[in-house]
Amino acid sequence: MLDSVVQSSESATERPTAALIAELCRQFYGLGWVSGTGGGISIRDERGVWMAPSGVQKERIAPEDVFLLADGVWDRAEVVEAPTNPKLRISECQPLFFNAFRMRDAGAVIHSHSIWAVLAARLFSPAGEAGEFRCRNLEMQKGLRGMGCFDELVVPIIPNTAREAQLRDSMAEAMARYPDVDAVIVAGHGIYVWGHDWVKAKTQAECFDYLLRAAVEAHRLGLPL
Amino acid sequence: MLDSVVQSSESATERPTAALIAELCRQFYGLGWVSGTGGGISIRDERGVWMAPSGVQKERIAPEDVFLLADGVWDRAEVVEAPTNPKLRISECQPLFFNAFRMRDAGAVIHSHSIWAVLAARLFSPAGEAGEFRCRNLEMQKGLRGMGCFDELVVPIIPNTAREAQLRDSMAEAMARYPDVDAVIVAGHGIYVWGHDWVKAKTQAECFDYLLRAAVEAHRLGLPL
Amino acid sequence: MLDSVVQSSESATERPTAALIAELCRQFYGLGWVSGTGGGISIRDERGVWMAPSGVQKERIAPEDVFLLADGVWDRAEVVEAPTNPKLRISECQPLFFNAFRMRDAGAVIHSHSIWAVLAARLFSPAGEAGEFRCRNLEMQKGLRGMGCFDELVVPIIPNTAREAQLRDSMAEAMARYPDVDAVIVAGHGIYVWGHDWVKAKTQAECFDYLLRAAVEAHRLGLPL
Amino acid sequence: MLDSVVQSSESATERPTAALIAELCRQFYGLGWVSGTGGGISIRDERGVWMAPSGVQKERIAPEDVFLLADGVWDRAEVVEAPTNPKLRISECQPLFFNAFRMRDAGAVIHSHSIWAVLAARLFSPAGEAGEFRCRNLEMQKGLRGMGCFDELVVPIIPNTAREAQLRDSMAEAMARYPDVDAVIVAGHGIYVWGHDWVKAKTQAECFDYLLRAAVEAHRLGLPL
Repeated sequence: MLDSVVQSSESATERPTAALIAELCRQFYGLGWVSGTGGGISIRDERGVWMAPSGVQKERIAPEDVFLLADGVWDRAEVVEAPTNPKLRISECQPLFFNAFRMRDAGAVIHSHSIWAVLAARLFSPAGEAGEFRCRNLEMQKGLRGMGCFDELVVPIIPNTAREAQLRDSMAEAMARYPDVDAVIVAGHGIYVWGHDWVKAKTQAECFDYLLRAAVEAHRLGLPL
Repeated sequence: MLDSVVQSSESATERPTAALIAELCRQFYGLGWVSGTGGGISIRDERGVWMAPSGVQKERIAPEDVFLLADGVWDRAEVVEAPTNPKLRISECQPLFFNAFRMRDAGAVIHSHSIWAVLAARLFSPAGEAGEFRCRNLEMQKGLRGMGCFDELVVPIIPNTAREAQLRDSMAEAMARYPDVDAVIVAGHGIYVWGHDWVKAKTQAECFDYLLRAAVEAHRLGLPL
Repeated sequence: MLDSVVQSSESATERPTAALIAELCRQFYGLGWVSGTGGGISIRDERGVWMAPSGVQKERIAPEDVFLLADGVWDRAEVVEAPTNPKLRISECQPLFFNAFRMRDAGAVIHSHSIWAVLAARLFSPAGEAGEFRCRNLEMQKGLRGMGCFDELVVPIIPNTAREAQLRDSMAEAMARYPDVDAVIVAGHGIYVWGHDWVKAKTQAECFDYLLRAAVEAHRLGLPL
Repeated sequence: MLDSVVQSSESATERPTAALIAELCRQFYGLGWVSGTGGGISIRDERGVWMAPSGVQKERIAPEDVFLLADGVWDRAEVVEAPTNPKLRISECQPLFFNAFRMRDAGAVIHSHSIWAVLAARLFSPAGEAGEFRCRNLEMQKGLRGMGCFDELVVPIIPNTAREAQLRDSMAEAMARYPDVDAVIVAGHGIYVWGHDWVKAKTQAECFDYLLRAAVEAHRLGLPL
């Protein structure tokens, strides 16, 4: 099988947001966020909710592999346009992505399996229990909605579940209790980050990843943040 | 010598699986799995068993460098199509790749020299002896055949040998004793990972690499998994 | 939105320094210096002072996004050519970049949020206070203006401020007290590095990043530099 | 200045080994071996000794920037073909590269400033004094001339000097005392690695970098090799 990353120009033109999803997934793969088929992204545009499929190699997604779901239908996934490949299924993250759309009117949601999220969660919730990630005095906090660099950043950590969809209620509950932060960390698993649009979701995700890593690295130096 | 990574379109078209092997080796080089000529990959298709050559720079393989061996002939390497370059030899991993084909009917096998495999093996088998790598409660376990995230993952570690071919029997023995996992770690050396097809082999290899790294990083934080 | 990194050939030809800024930002993103919209660069040429915009994804800048400011006007930012996109604002680093132009006649200034700058500053100024980063006996020191490898490198660390522009006076003061080094570290934030031209600014920035990392890594080995 | 990495096809065709040097330098930059203008490479072919220039950004070298020196003239650098840019100077490493050509009839020599070489040297020679790097039982040793994976690898470490050319005699002396290894580590500086041809030099350099890193990482785990 030759390199399928090359997007058919026809598909990329007709489905530009799907093409953006494919491009961002390649970038996220390079950042270590979406290897081993984990992680994903969903972006809303005027046509609806675009979502990466489940269980595929994220760096090899083509625009025609992306689902288009109905916008505003948050109790189920209503497919408007299915991928050309009938074997593809909707991302397992779909109910979790929908939490961000439904509760925060997010324009995009990113799910990252970055190892820094897992290690930072371990520091703050050693038994994988519910908890909080905390840090302060880091400039990169400024890239987060409503945060100054001397504020204390608090991000909820929720326990993982056997199946991803089972996180829906605990994630929603954490989002309700922490209305000022656009992320939820899942212990042993990763992080969900959303934003007003795909740019905010991505740039906030980059800031969270940096901050999670900084906390881990500082702890390793014997100088916890 | 100019950049030989560019694949002749003719060769890539006639030997698509060989072109895939070349492409994946470049990706694995970027991941740190196949530097210094170590590591490799073998993929089966309808024409037979494709295998990367031995002792070459993996990120510079061209489709015409890949061997095609007879499928189903597991006691020896029977060459169906040799590379155009007569100096190339079959991968030293060939008997080990054949273990996965023969015993598990794998569609593809990857051999990685990732430093995380070496460090994790050192944690669990400090003297390089036979042992087991263990972890649990990590979401990335879900990318492995038959594993849930709260299960305990156990991967056999076998001692290294002076020559790679000498690992054949101990690898086969470990595979027989651990039928539920699609990998064997070789102490001080790396890991062999296989799967039903090249996609499963690759995505499982990515999950194993992540888990091996997580174990090492967590140990460094004073919070072993 | 498709990949906007491809620069319109027309814009790249008319604004070559702006095109260089876009190219370098992509490279710096890969180095971990400018993620989450942090960091930036400014380069002077015969037309004036080119500066990356504020709060954008640095790896996706196009030449037409870059500001051209009047050279020699250091008390304010006088726009000579604005980006085609009216929503873009001048980099928040502008007064800090101007410190280097004004006080050192620098040809270019780079602002990096490299995690190594933050961790090294933490080692030397654990409470984020004013301090000094010190190291010696590293060959990479030779890449810094006026430094031999056995000299002692001293780089000022200044405390961070709530807003980037508020660093202007403390940065200028540190530059006045440390005339032999072309960098200032901002605790919890990053580093500003300048040079006679963009090549010197970049290569010195690479040396500083290496040295900051070496100090952190050596400390972690129990063998502080 | 636009991206000068693109090599003029005319120059690349006329000077293929110079084009190879440019390509490898870009690859080495990505590996962290040649940032901040440090490091370099020299390759011999039928026309003579090709050598990267001094003090330039290694990832931006063009084939026309590479020097061609006379082969077999080891007491001085005799320029056969100078770069088109008259400001370029011969690599500071030239006498050290010549040690490998003169004493070992190497086909190519690589100088890397990899941080792993600096950290590993620190472990074994904490005061930067002469010493030895040692490791054993690592598969990647097999990529080194004459080494098995259970042998003990010994690499000489020599103290750094104020100027690179001053290393010539101590490097030659170390090479004479350690005839079975194709590398010399310079404390606080980096490593020189050579080989029969550029492929051997590169693949050995990759193995050494891996082994140096493994030693550092294992030490950090409390399990020194």
